[in-house]
Amino acid sequence: MLHTHLWPTTATINEQGHLEVGGCDAVALAREYGTPLYLLDEATFRSACRAYREALARHHGGPAAAHYAGKALLTTAVARIAAEEGMGLDVVSGGELYVALRAGFPAGRIHVHGNAKPRAELEQALEAGVGQIVADNLDELALLAELTAGRTRPQPLALRLAPDIAPETHIHITTGHAASKFGLPLEALDAAAALVRGAPGLALRGLHAHLGSQVFDYTPMVRALGVLLDCAARLRERHGIAIDEISPGGGLGAPYTPEQPLPDVDAYVAALARALAEGCAARGLPLPKLTIEPGRSVAARAGVALYTVVATKPLAPKAERRTLNAEEAGLNNLATEPTGVQPAACSRYLHVDGGMGDNVRPALYGARYTALLAGRAGAPPEELVHVAGRYCESGDVLLRDVPLPRAAPGDVLAVAGAGAYTLSMASTYNLVPRPALLLVAVGRAQLAQRRERYEDLVLRDA
Amino acid sequence: MLHTHLWPTTATINEQGHLEVGGCDAVALAREYGTPLYLLDEATFRSACRAYREALARHHGGPAAAHYAGKALLTTAVARIAAEEGMGLDVVSGGELYVALRAGFPAGRIHVHGNAKPRAELEQALEAGVGQIVADNLDELALLAELTAGRTRPQPLALRLAPDIAPETHIHITTGHAASKFGLPLEALDAAAALVRGAPGLALRGLHAHLGSQVFDYTPMVRALGVLLDCAARLRERHGIAIDEISPGGGLGAPYTPEQPLPDVDAYVAALARALAEGCAARGLPLPKLTIEPGRSVAARAGVALYTVVATKPLAPKAERRTLNAEEAGLNNLATEPTGVQPAACSRYLHVDGGMGDNVRPALYGARYTALLAGRAGAPPEELVHVAGRYCESGDVLLRDVPLPRAAPGDVLAVAGAGAYTLSMASTYNLVPRPALLLVAVGRAQLAQRRERYEDLVLRDA
Repeated sequence: MLHTHLWPTTATINEQGHLEVGGCDAVALAREYGTPLYLLDEATFRSACRAYREALARHHGGPAAAHYAGKALLTTAVARIAAEEGMGLDVVSGGELYVALRAGFPAGRIHVHGNAKPRAELEQALEAGVGQIVADNLDELALLAELTAGRTRPQPLALRLAPDIAPETHIHITTGHAASKFGLPLEALDAAAALVRGAPGLALRGLHAHLGSQVFDYTPMVRALGVLLDCAARLRERHGIAIDEISPGGGLGAPYTPEQPLPDVDAYVAALARALAEGCAARGLPLPKLTIEPGRSVAARAGVALYTVVATKPLAPKAERRTLNAEEAGLNNLATEPTGVQPAACSRYLHVDGGMGDNVRPALYGARYTALLAGRAGAPPEELVHVAGRYCESGDVLLRDVPLPRAAPGDVLAVAGAGAYTLSMASTYNLVPRPALLLVAVGRAQLAQRRERYEDLVLRDA
Repeated sequence: MLHTHLWPTTATINEQGHLEVGGCDAVALAREYGTPLYLLDEATFRSACRAYREALARHHGGPAAAHYAGKALLTTAVARIAAEEGMGLDVVSGGELYVALRAGFPAGRIHVHGNAKPRAELEQALEAGVGQIVADNLDELALLAELTAGRTRPQPLALRLAPDIAPETHIHITTGHAASKFGLPLEALDAAAALVRGAPGLALRGLHAHLGSQVFDYTPMVRALGVLLDCAARLRERHGIAIDEISPGGGLGAPYTPEQPLPDVDAYVAALARALAEGCAARGLPLPKLTIEPGRSVAARAGVALYTVVATKPLAPKAERRTLNAEEAGLNNLATEPTGVQPAACSRYLHVDGGMGDNVRPALYGARYTALLAGRAGAPPEELVHVAGRYCESGDVLLRDVPLPRAAPGDVLAVAGAGAYTLSMASTYNLVPRPALLLVAVGRAQLAQRRERYEDLVLRDA
């Protein structure tokens, strides 16, 4: 059964009962390209970009930009599509900048983020003429002042602030509280302003905050806007610095399981634009440019991961009880003792040919996903199973208690919401080559990234 | 201060106060090769291999083998060293097998593990003539029976059993309990025997169990030996199958922090050998070959990771309190509320140029490490700091509350115990190129794996 808001907008079930994405039969693609295989539905990705740009145009009275956060998923082809859709791009490393420039992404629309930008990567960014460097701390500002000394055209700069607001999300991906490694503590704002005023090669233009990822309630982001505007007012009053760009970051959630709703991008942008307008009016500030930096909410839903079932293993009821308890006790918890939870009806493990190497989120965050059998996409579920990855580690279980028709070795499993923070975090753990990424659109599949080969694994070996 | 049992056996502090490993100045290597940089001390790795082989020779009356578990760290050079030390090798994928064969590792000394071996990789292993395939489940046995039909020389086979014994370790790396994805449930033993007896291309020789990783108390492994011998007796009595090799797996811990002891390999092997001899005598079984499969305890201590401090960030006491609470509540836990823990004296973040991309263990398991400043290795600590990685994720904090001399941007940080499950799990998250790995020995450094280049990152891109 297709929970349509979790799958790409083009996902359907065709006459053979197969999952179809971008007009391509998923089972046929798995057969042709092998598995694990990642599909990226171009229409879904592009329409998510447009939703942000259109909402900004609709709700914000001033200039605006939507920046795709490349850390969610960045390949040459993905950067090209984001550029075509008129997006800006956030990069967090010299490598991401390299890929963006290779794709022909205009440097002026690139912002460079990161809490620990090495000198060589700052030099690379300055050399490329990026639109903005988002400085994280005073040490970085001092280094930037040194690197830009003597420039005729100052480098546009933003400050990432830590507004001390914690949204409700996973602690790993919460970034806005004051103890986060990210951003300038508010009490360092004056010191930062002094540094910038003494650096003729830098032009402080923007203030940025990012509160975290996979956030569904955006009230904290609205509150963060208020903090940023307070800082803008302080910079104007105390330091004569005019801030003309405000970014409350990204972080809007993407649904992975049926009970999670698809966030309303338009309402989110409208709320931010309204808060910005009202906040500026209240402080007597001119309306600045509004920049929003979505990653997951652009890429996640566009992606589908395909795996082949390699083997199965029955689960004894007694054993099952123990697994569930460990899970309930928290995946990263040492407790292994029963805690009195009721056994589920989960009957088997399905072992698939991918796992934490291509998608570390279940192991890292306890992330949950939704799946179906690509060859029987419309068939009713017959059992609850755990889907175990192939990696030699107990934590490598991709899905738990997922309802599926009775599967057998050879069946193709499709996982929804696999576009963000999967391939971008992929490893070659166990020396398993990384999957191919196919762009699918209007019945046509194109390799965006070919499958890794054994020879690639030893490319760097002596 | 050097907690010598955590650092390579060759680690010293030289006249300049620099950390020296394998006779090489770590600061000079960082300068020459850049950071992040991983050093692998050949002497430590080789002596750990020898400790296993010598202990087996000393304590086991029959044939024996120590197999290095390549998933801890496998490159061409590492495979070569393991081969030179007379080790066997455990591989868990076609990729690991490929690297081993490329290194000239004798196929007959290779065992192939894994819970989900794809058909193509089983074919590759059979083709290579590996010494043993360790089958995980009935589906795999059925497939192996099919693939080996018509062979003149049967493929040696072992069964991985799930003995339902849980050692005290992290739930992610606990593998021996009955609800684990790994291994044949004991109640399926007769079905497995029937399958093997009907497969003339397969010769069942061994029984294997692996209870988990980073285990310090090996009593559970001794108990697992008993379960394996019960199964061997059952196979002999009911099915006329003679098991001549028993493997209680690997899993011996490695110390990462001063309070963790260095496990005594000799005592561990002695305990296993004694249990095996006594268990065989009690059951009237001939003494089989004893195979032990260490990974972490061979590679971890040999490795040192070097990072450069890129920036620093002060921590307000209030902010600090919140971070500690979240950590105390479990890194993978959604709780962010204060739980009443006392604030530590931690004063700053040091931001370094590596992190969860090259070492995901702190983010994935809450793993702790020990570090020093390579340029002032003997200097007394002056403050407690958190070492934040460069990756755009709050969970990317490599070390927490680590005592160090006052560090500044440019200082080189050395992390101990970095040889296992670091580079082998490395990703290109944030498109940060993976570090170089240097073999160091008697004052000489050799590239085992060169640093990844930007061009490598787009090798697979369309």
